[in-house]
Amino acid sequence: MARWEPGARERLVVAAVDLFTEQGYDATTVAQIAERAGVTKSTFFRHFPDKRELLVAGQETLSQLLAEGIAEAPGSATPLEAVAAGLVRAASAMGPTSRELAPRLKAAIASSVELQERDALKSVSLAAAMTTALIARGVPDPTAALASELGLLAFKRGYAEWSEGDADDELAGYALAALEELRAASASLG
Amino acid sequence: MARWEPGARERLVVAAVDLFTEQGYDATTVAQIAERAGVTKSTFFRHFPDKRELLVAGQETLSQLLAEGIAEAPGSATPLEAVAAGLVRAASAMGPTSRELAPRLKAAIASSVELQERDALKSVSLAAAMTTALIARGVPDPTAALASELGLLAFKRGYAEWSEGDADDELAGYALAALEELRAASASLG
Repeated sequence: MARWEPGARERLVVAAVDLFTEQGYDATTVAQIAERAGVTKSTFFRHFPDKRELLVAGQETLSQLLAEGIAEAPGSATPLEAVAAGLVRAASAMGPTSRELAPRLKAAIASSVELQERDALKSVSLAAAMTTALIARGVPDPTAALASELGLLAFKRGYAEWSEGDADDELAGYALAALEELRAASASLG
Repeated sequence: MARWEPGARERLVVAAVDLFTEQGYDATTVAQIAERAGVTKSTFFRHFPDKRELLVAGQETLSQLLAEGIAEAPGSATPLEAVAAGLVRAASAMGPTSRELAPRLKAAIASSVELQERDALKSVSLAAAMTTALIARGVPDPTAALASELGLLAFKRGYAEWSEGDADDELAGYALAALEELRAASASLG
């Protein structure tokens, strides 16, 4: 088997989520995931340190894209406009495979407290990446923290609606609509 | 040893946090925690299912108090005023022992990814408890989710400042100041 296997990473994620949903997270082994994906165990370990990390494979990429989008927004952008630019950049990494996987991923997470914990820490990391990028733009701390939470909520809400929408839609539109909805809601907090 | 041991729960928490800080979370056993606290292992298990849950001992209590405070706020209260009432109610559960423990708890969490994950899920639970209580008051969904995130941020930021402030201060004042700061920041999101 060649060391370079095109699509192996994606196949591993799909295989894992399917197995987690079919037989539960705890009962699923790395060997089973590799077999279902048609790769060796050593290929698995070239891509992921363990089965749990597999489920949050995209976290570092998303954090980086969010931060890049915020950093590269025009200097005149408001905090939420910068966050919107981060959301658009991050959404570009989520294609049809991510969308198709979403319901099974949701079911797998719902079935395991361990995965819920990992997923919650992922959210903390994404918000922290946005906060750091906003502070680097000169946004003061409480505003940066708040704008990041709005961005995180928008990303989650947009992702949930995207996964239930038309197959041809892109995530960016849903995330931006969710951010706009939250911005409007911020006026009625009292 | 009597089945009823006054203060055993609190002693177990203090002993565990000390041991986690001294020798790391992974290396600490339930037997060591019980011994340090001067109780039996079975006393430990009457209070906590395992060493991890011990660190988030107050989560259910906090969720309940946040929800009660929100539910019992006057009908005329805005979403953020209701959240403020929840924060005051929850803060009442955090006394001098919580404050004294805060720096060691922070160090223990910083030293363990597993504890960071558990702590992150705790935050999700607290926000969900507030959102549910706000929706029950008739606050529409995006506003309720947003108000809860502000409440959660305020609780965390207030807690961090309280743990570094004067020993006689109460948490409620810090949490309310943090909430007010976030409310003001929401006007500059753009």
